[in-house]
Amino acid sequence: MAQTNKNKIINDPVHGFINISHPLSFDIIEHPYFQRLRHIRQLGLTYLVYPGANHTRFQHALGAMHLMNLAIDTLRSKGHEITEAEAEAASAAILLHDIGHGPFSHSLEFSLAQRVGHEAISKCFMHELNKQFGNRLNLAIAIFEGSYEKKFLHQLISGQLDMDRMDYLRRDSFFSGVTEGAIGSERIIKMLNVVNGDLVVEAKGIYSVEKFIIARRLMYWQVYLHKTVIAAEKLLTQLLLRARDLTQQGEEVWATPSLYFFLRKSIVKKDFEQSSDGKPSEALLNFANLDDNDIITAAKLWVNHSDPVLSLLARMITSRKLFRVKLQNKPFAEQEVETRKQDLYSLYPTLRGMGKYFVLTDSVSNNAYRSTEESIKILYNNGILFDITEASDMLNTKILSKDVRKYFLCYPKEIEK
Amino acid sequence: MAQTNKNKIINDPVHGFINISHPLSFDIIEHPYFQRLRHIRQLGLTYLVYPGANHTRFQHALGAMHLMNLAIDTLRSKGHEITEAEAEAASAAILLHDIGHGPFSHSLEFSLAQRVGHEAISKCFMHELNKQFGNRLNLAIAIFEGSYEKKFLHQLISGQLDMDRMDYLRRDSFFSGVTEGAIGSERIIKMLNVVNGDLVVEAKGIYSVEKFIIARRLMYWQVYLHKTVIAAEKLLTQLLLRARDLTQQGEEVWATPSLYFFLRKSIVKKDFEQSSDGKPSEALLNFANLDDNDIITAAKLWVNHSDPVLSLLARMITSRKLFRVKLQNKPFAEQEVETRKQDLYSLYPTLRGMGKYFVLTDSVSNNAYRSTEESIKILYNNGILFDITEASDMLNTKILSKDVRKYFLCYPKEIEK
Amino acid sequence: MAQTNKNKIINDPVHGFINISHPLSFDIIEHPYFQRLRHIRQLGLTYLVYPGANHTRFQHALGAMHLMNLAIDTLRSKGHEITEAEAEAASAAILLHDIGHGPFSHSLEFSLAQRVGHEAISKCFMHELNKQFGNRLNLAIAIFEGSYEKKFLHQLISGQLDMDRMDYLRRDSFFSGVTEGAIGSERIIKMLNVVNGDLVVEAKGIYSVEKFIIARRLMYWQVYLHKTVIAAEKLLTQLLLRARDLTQQGEEVWATPSLYFFLRKSIVKKDFEQSSDGKPSEALLNFANLDDNDIITAAKLWVNHSDPVLSLLARMITSRKLFRVKLQNKPFAEQEVETRKQDLYSLYPTLRGMGKYFVLTDSVSNNAYRSTEESIKILYNNGILFDITEASDMLNTKILSKDVRKYFLCYPKEIEK
Amino acid sequence: MAQTNKNKIINDPVHGFINISHPLSFDIIEHPYFQRLRHIRQLGLTYLVYPGANHTRFQHALGAMHLMNLAIDTLRSKGHEITEAEAEAASAAILLHDIGHGPFSHSLEFSLAQRVGHEAISKCFMHELNKQFGNRLNLAIAIFEGSYEKKFLHQLISGQLDMDRMDYLRRDSFFSGVTEGAIGSERIIKMLNVVNGDLVVEAKGIYSVEKFIIARRLMYWQVYLHKTVIAAEKLLTQLLLRARDLTQQGEEVWATPSLYFFLRKSIVKKDFEQSSDGKPSEALLNFANLDDNDIITAAKLWVNHSDPVLSLLARMITSRKLFRVKLQNKPFAEQEVETRKQDLYSLYPTLRGMGKYFVLTDSVSNNAYRSTEESIKILYNNGILFDITEASDMLNTKILSKDVRKYFLCYPKEIEK
Repeated sequence: MAQTNKNKIINDPVHGFINISHPLSFDIIEHPYFQRLRHIRQLGLTYLVYPGANHTRFQHALGAMHLMNLAIDTLRSKGHEITEAEAEAASAAILLHDIGHGPFSHSLEFSLAQRVGHEAISKCFMHELNKQFGNRLNLAIAIFEGSYEKKFLHQLISGQLDMDRMDYLRRDSFFSGVTEGAIGSERIIKMLNVVNGDLVVEAKGIYSVEKFIIARRLMYWQVYLHKTVIAAEKLLTQLLLRARDLTQQGEEVWATPSLYFFLRKSIVKKDFEQSSDGKPSEALLNFANLDDNDIITAAKLWVNHSDPVLSLLARMITSRKLFRVKLQNKPFAEQEVETRKQDLYSLYPTLRGMGKYFVLTDSVSNNAYRSTEESIKILYNNGILFDITEASDMLNTKILSKDVRKYFLCYPKEIEK
Repeated sequence: MAQTNKNKIINDPVHGFINISHPLSFDIIEHPYFQRLRHIRQLGLTYLVYPGANHTRFQHALGAMHLMNLAIDTLRSKGHEITEAEAEAASAAILLHDIGHGPFSHSLEFSLAQRVGHEAISKCFMHELNKQFGNRLNLAIAIFEGSYEKKFLHQLISGQLDMDRMDYLRRDSFFSGVTEGAIGSERIIKMLNVVNGDLVVEAKGIYSVEKFIIARRLMYWQVYLHKTVIAAEKLLTQLLLRARDLTQQGEEVWATPSLYFFLRKSIVKKDFEQSSDGKPSEALLNFANLDDNDIITAAKLWVNHSDPVLSLLARMITSRKLFRVKLQNKPFAEQEVETRKQDLYSLYPTLRGMGKYFVLTDSVSNNAYRSTEESIKILYNNGILFDITEASDMLNTKILSKDVRKYFLCYPKEIEK
Repeated sequence: MAQTNKNKIINDPVHGFINISHPLSFDIIEHPYFQRLRHIRQLGLTYLVYPGANHTRFQHALGAMHLMNLAIDTLRSKGHEITEAEAEAASAAILLHDIGHGPFSHSLEFSLAQRVGHEAISKCFMHELNKQFGNRLNLAIAIFEGSYEKKFLHQLISGQLDMDRMDYLRRDSFFSGVTEGAIGSERIIKMLNVVNGDLVVEAKGIYSVEKFIIARRLMYWQVYLHKTVIAAEKLLTQLLLRARDLTQQGEEVWATPSLYFFLRKSIVKKDFEQSSDGKPSEALLNFANLDDNDIITAAKLWVNHSDPVLSLLARMITSRKLFRVKLQNKPFAEQEVETRKQDLYSLYPTLRGMGKYFVLTDSVSNNAYRSTEESIKILYNNGILFDITEASDMLNTKILSKDVRKYFLCYPKEIEK
Repeated sequence: MAQTNKNKIINDPVHGFINISHPLSFDIIEHPYFQRLRHIRQLGLTYLVYPGANHTRFQHALGAMHLMNLAIDTLRSKGHEITEAEAEAASAAILLHDIGHGPFSHSLEFSLAQRVGHEAISKCFMHELNKQFGNRLNLAIAIFEGSYEKKFLHQLISGQLDMDRMDYLRRDSFFSGVTEGAIGSERIIKMLNVVNGDLVVEAKGIYSVEKFIIARRLMYWQVYLHKTVIAAEKLLTQLLLRARDLTQQGEEVWATPSLYFFLRKSIVKKDFEQSSDGKPSEALLNFANLDDNDIITAAKLWVNHSDPVLSLLARMITSRKLFRVKLQNKPFAEQEVETRKQDLYSLYPTLRGMGKYFVLTDSVSNNAYRSTEESIKILYNNGILFDITEASDMLNTKILSKDVRKYFLCYPKEIEK
């Protein structure tokens, strides 16, 4: 009876109806750690450029679970055994794969939790949930961590053609309105197969894979690494850094208790781990309370702070006066950075010495296909496997496996000459 | 040159590309009063039921502007004169038609600003902006208020087939994933015409109008008045009421300054109006700072408040333990409400006397077509006009013009028998 | 192994991928009787008005089979037993439900096979196939004819909410480009259930059913009974009648052998039935050879025929000079018909006496919901059933169950005054 | 007034509403030469593989005209002058660009009109129409032929990013259900510009162009050069060749008069040109009467012909028993062809000596981007132009500009070993 109630259908604009088929999935979704993802935008500040991109990590996790169930059905129909326990665990693992993301994580990871990646935090959450759920997540964690014998289950969660990517590329394309980034997730999933324990794509799917790679690349340059998105993320990073610096210098900076926890001290990975008494760490509990609302509310309040750096950065982000961004293929000369800072000081003498918050340079990179990572294997009728870079005569294999790195310089628009 | 920069294209998942064609539109969109709509969800708490429904009033206003431009092109192509000044003003008016909405307005209007409708606040914003813009909004305001001679321009903003509805029905359907609510906005717009100064629909559009009315009805019962959405909105209303009551009783209740302004005193319509010195009122300035983030952040913090009512309500909303809702066609007996309260007290003795915050009854209504409102006129080839309720042999005219009212009773699930 | 080859996936622009899941379905689809549907447009001459409407009865039958499989999955998931044999038979029955349609059947049934409906011919085909398939269609035929005990299986094939309508409304809407006719087939199917052996819709589906009825009505007036479509169909009817009359008068009229068979003699229902030796009838064999190509090729050749009636009608249809159509709510007076004929004779003296081929009157009707037919039953949570006309407060029940009949008069445009 | 009637809106499932904005366009569309395209499938026999692919050259020509009008609006909005006369002519030219296609032209051009390409016939039609229209097509023909001074107008009709491709890739993808072939036509068109008289794409469109090239490639291998499509086309080619051979040997082979014209004698390009008296040639008139119906009707009749080759080939195509196709990267050895023929003779001794009709080898090629053709020029902000193969670091330029050629061998399935 309880089980019946756990059978639920959710409307999803991308995939239509999503069934929650496993009671374990239902229990995960109901948990506050997961519900919290309702308030964390999948694409952070991207909505400042693409106003439709307000979709959340909650929706994405459900969508990826839906595709996982499709993939499992497909592989079973091709004769590969996947037990109910494995199916349930794979669903749970994909639901939880991004649970460790904080709000605006591109900014957060570079400021408040700069040395801790979201994968590590995801694992902390999983182990904590596993305890609460009486070890029902054992198999899910084994699959997630890659220690389970059926490798392909792990590859469905984390690999070149995992259900994470299958969902987020379509979803981000859908909500941003960059329709060209849409990929044929359903079609690629129908062409998946397993050979020697590895996930492969049948040969007739080669053009779909080519298109997937090109669409991913398009989404990178057009959305994920969009100049103005970078400008917004860097601005938020600087704002949070300044708030942390002030807090640690003893200045009073308003923040919700959970945000304050991260401003007040420098958190490292170890802080997230369970304490010896088996209780969740203070860092994890505070992280579990943090979402987009804490950050935006704080930014709005900081507009009136007495510190000129904090208030100016806060005003810039809340009124959408973002940094100007210059992009180029080689690092910016130190001299150029210095000149910009001087320009800033000429304009705002009170900011003298604070240039590092307003003028900064860094780089972003995107390689559409990482050959050092696990590769996409194409299965030919005769049973032979080729890597996609060999199988496709089209894709430039050298480029594919090479980082494309772009350097950027951010500074306030007012000092544009 | 400035104008060139004000020419912008925005990606919209619903309509494709949206052009900002008028400099005035550009200036409105850039203004912080309008940018604030980026942080106000179009459908309030509906995302707790339809996880895709995170779209904002910002997107909706842009979409409605886009359809306004289409409608103006259509009417011009049918020989009706619309000057550039009128087109610009109509665009501005539709952009601003919802500017007075606060966060979660269904809850806010019933708690903090309960005697002030969003239309009144929209007008205050418009007048304030008009002052800032050197009276460039004079014509837009006249059209919005219905005082301009070309009535049909007002009807495009507020009427049975206005661009507001044309956008929101499609948009809400799109993001909620309730695809059946989708309407053929573009097709209806192509069939608009003007007769004797009134907006009419050409006869071949009659089936599209029927379908529009049915789709609107479907969206009402399936989305806008969805039981669980009501449960969430009422819960938030009660939370805000409790926070206000405590504040006004002198208890300390954390809130952002702008939210605190509304908790601290009972605001009436007059408070929003310009002061005699022509400056914006304090109420308006605070309202302009308020968005979804203030409310959700406060609710998260209130979970740990010492007042058992406030903390329980806050915990319910943040962990999505919503009210149970019973619906029926007639009012609930007082006795039933009383019984539920007693059940609550038996379960939680500390809540004795606080029943009004947890057990409440009210009603919602929807009439798909209000004949007392301006009607939908259908234009036949011979030039004769009929009201849709006469022209359509299908739609039940008595029902169409009658309120469908449903009564609901909300109470915590735990006291369900 | 043979079975593996019979597992096939077909691309369908409407539903995505269609799986042929049963070997029996595969064998039916491969049969020439079924392949012939590739050359019979679903909507006859409608492509002369909606150029996209070139989709065929072949596609529709596959689509309906796909939805049947979805419906069976849904009902099974709700605990209703449907055996593999029943599922296979239901698939076969829906595949074959329209097999008896000839080319342009609206015209054909009114000219060459005027006394034989397509349902009767479908049955003849089914019995013939059953013989060829060694009685593997026994159960399918029982379901199709309504004699099988599980009534709901028949209702899925022929009823108010059958898979035929679920497919054709979406498909016709999709290909004609009249997007507003689209219905949420998948959503309605998810809400199907069985009570006392009857197919019902769960209460939460009531708005979807309302919308289905309104969409169906829209498709009727906007597509199926579109004035110009009627004009084309009636023109073709007249052309075929003239060809038959000439043939039966001994004139030489070119036609493919199969078409000639139907021109030469008046075929009645009995002619289609199996001869006593169990062989398929000559009528059936010729019918099985007939498709859109026979008719259009003949029309093109008849343009040069010496008979002025045949050649004029042929020229009209091939160069798309269709009849003018007048519509009204009451029958046309005989006098008006006569006047039009006289106008025709004044213009073309050689056509004197041939008026019946060029000036004609008839009627079309559409009732969106036939209460005399089996009704749509809505299932409430308490287990009570209501007819949709009682359950919906919106739909005008009197209108719903009443024929809407429109009378039309067709005549050549040249005699328009 | 006449002009009003020539203003028409057509429903198109791909682009929505298509306006016929120029009276000249209206007159072209009404002409029987153009109406004939209603009966010529855009993708020939592809519907035997993708059942949805029944769309016609009529629809495609309208769609391309629609995109041409969009492109003209875009270029005008960027300050490029395009007069009304030029706009009208460009519309006319794109409407007529494919008018010279015959039915199943891949088969027809290799059998009955083997030395005449459709472009040459298109020009004959245009000149004939120009005469009938009193030289109103002068400018359209100049643009089509590339002799008009504004080169970009020609490039919109025939170039790497012409409106032909912009429509057909989306349309063929839409109707075949191979959704991954869809391209963002509207987006690319919005990014078109003109520099030094040449059509170019603005730099931000580079990823869209990459995706366009990849999508085009996908459509080639998945649809246009699909093995089974080739099998069907080659079968029809052989059938028509046999019919022609028999006819020219004096055998009686039924065909419509227009088809017979092409069976009876070998037509060369000169035959299509106007006779000295300015009348259209007999070849052109017969070609103008030929459509898919003539071919399919003939094939159906030939099933019963006494010639075993003709009847077997006809039976194969009508009952969809297509050739088996083997693909490889190098030519097939003559020996292999010979062996297959011997296998055929063993199985069907009566076919001895007729091997060439049943066993054949040839090749197909596709280069996604022909650098020898006019290239795609990318416009950077600084005004500099790069060829896409230089601008994109992704696309393999050597591959792009090289033919990919595949060799195939066709033979009846029965002789498969």
